[in-house]
Amino acid sequence: MVMKKFLNDPQDITAELLEGYTLAYSSKVKLVSDKIVMRAKPKDKSKVALVTLGGTGHEPALSGYVGEGMLDASVAGDIFAAPGAPKVLEALRLLKDHAGILFIILNHAGDVMNGNMAFEMAKKEGINVKTLLTHEDIAPGANAPKEDRRGLGGSIPLFKIIGAAAEAGKSFDEVFALAERFNERMATLAVTMKTATHPQSGTYIATLPDDQMEIGMGQHGEGGGTGPQPIAPADEIAEIMVKKLAAATNAQSGEKVALIINGSGATTLMEMFIVFRKSYRVLESMGIQVVASRCEEILTVQEAAGFQMFLGVLDDELLAYFNAPADTPYWVTR
Amino acid sequence: MVMKKFLNDPQDITAELLEGYTLAYSSKVKLVSDKIVMRAKPKDKSKVALVTLGGTGHEPALSGYVGEGMLDASVAGDIFAAPGAPKVLEALRLLKDHAGILFIILNHAGDVMNGNMAFEMAKKEGINVKTLLTHEDIAPGANAPKEDRRGLGGSIPLFKIIGAAAEAGKSFDEVFALAERFNERMATLAVTMKTATHPQSGTYIATLPDDQMEIGMGQHGEGGGTGPQPIAPADEIAEIMVKKLAAATNAQSGEKVALIINGSGATTLMEMFIVFRKSYRVLESMGIQVVASRCEEILTVQEAAGFQMFLGVLDDELLAYFNAPADTPYWVTR
Repeated sequence: MVMKKFLNDPQDITAELLEGYTLAYSSKVKLVSDKIVMRAKPKDKSKVALVTLGGTGHEPALSGYVGEGMLDASVAGDIFAAPGAPKVLEALRLLKDHAGILFIILNHAGDVMNGNMAFEMAKKEGINVKTLLTHEDIAPGANAPKEDRRGLGGSIPLFKIIGAAAEAGKSFDEVFALAERFNERMATLAVTMKTATHPQSGTYIATLPDDQMEIGMGQHGEGGGTGPQPIAPADEIAEIMVKKLAAATNAQSGEKVALIINGSGATTLMEMFIVFRKSYRVLESMGIQVVASRCEEILTVQEAAGFQMFLGVLDDELLAYFNAPADTPYWVTR
Repeated sequence: MVMKKFLNDPQDITAELLEGYTLAYSSKVKLVSDKIVMRAKPKDKSKVALVTLGGTGHEPALSGYVGEGMLDASVAGDIFAAPGAPKVLEALRLLKDHAGILFIILNHAGDVMNGNMAFEMAKKEGINVKTLLTHEDIAPGANAPKEDRRGLGGSIPLFKIIGAAAEAGKSFDEVFALAERFNERMATLAVTMKTATHPQSGTYIATLPDDQMEIGMGQHGEGGGTGPQPIAPADEIAEIMVKKLAAATNAQSGEKVALIINGSGATTLMEMFIVFRKSYRVLESMGIQVVASRCEEILTVQEAAGFQMFLGVLDDELLAYFNAPADTPYWVTR
């Protein structure tokens, strides 16, 4: 079967998409050394630099958030694959004169391995870098060891908050402490109705029967969820998920939260709004106030049908950073 | 077959999605009288007001662009259906004290009929309103009568440009003249690989064989295109489409253009970047300079695979308005 995708030679996907991305947003980002996306207009080096790494195939993330108020650089891998450690080291070297580099790694085996190798090499070179692992997927249970919990779209509101703090001139220690504070009380849960095709092989990355969905399936069709179950009404799905997220983050009545519905690819904004509405109402009934929100595709899985629901507890300082200005290709705040 | 969508009762889709949308972006938009999306913080009435109408099911458009620097109101219909004339008249009445109302109608039969009825009724009441029809689809040929050319996603960069002019305090005549100027030199062409399911009936709105695509298919699966043809490489499709658009807008070497790739729903940003890249390079080889661009979903068709390519010729004044600040849920410019 021919894939229903707009592609040329599958081997050229990553190079072509990075070229197109940086041409489309050339006032904001530029491509350096094939795989490193950096700000088109870097700020002076007195600020803490933020960098991350991750495979392509999930656009807009993570390179979509390089720019004023968020990331300084993102190192792209091939489709669903981490970039190699030497390329990551190269990015760390490019940022070495900043007031420290906070290197955010989403918990996936390849990213962790290559990220940590680059980190160790950078430290040996005397580069002032610290890593922060995101692991906010609660599919294996909120109390599972953090090694077992994947890093999902929660990394993006994290970039927003600590990016604003870095932009405001906070010290390396302050930015790191803020990152840890938000990281500890954020959680994501995914639901999938239909998985995606791998754009290079054309094969499904997992399958689900026609009338089934799965809560907790990973970004690339990995298990760890509750297993396939019959498709339920949106309100029922939203209520199950938001309650699990509220429990996982220990969000209490009177607290403020960010609620994000992040589409996986083929799920419409129409559906995301319906799910957002119910999730908001459930939180409202628990006395939890949604003070920050987004419904859109921030980290996708090709043409998969499904979404990630994200909940993060915000205090006034974190909320102020969430609302601070940003100017990246896929997250702009005035 | 069970639809792979997150829904409750299909009859409640529009009400639920509008509730969710206005909750998710409550700092920017509010819902008035069930179907009218207005700015949460309206500007003083000395400015020209911009309003449009259109069916739901295409999120984020058109209600996604209500806010500072773009629309003042959008009247939503049910799925793929125009709102009734009385509801549109109600919106026009709410804006009657502004320095004129520019009412933009996308050329689709139901929108034109209900929009024109409301327009005639508003004029009888002495409301200062003018209509502007967008008809930039070149599928039936760039020289086809404008009645035969559909209004597609080009309406959204139009909202951006004239919205900035209205915000800057330009007169009703000036805003209208600017709208006509941009409208005359913008063009859109769609390509579809896989059509979508109607979210209320669960049936496909059109079908395409597994190895076929169609250039020029309408928003709701209507014909008017070149008919099904084998799926071609992305670069070939991009080159065919961008050359047709350059011819239709009469874009000349030395001129500046806006190039937008607008995803239909299931087509990934990855693919859109690949298409953007080739389109940019073709224009570059013709001496046409891309000075404004976006790759994202601005007007969708459920989970259809495909995209609309948009080209609009910009002079310095139009470009300045394109780049001026805006703060709506789905188009923010700092």
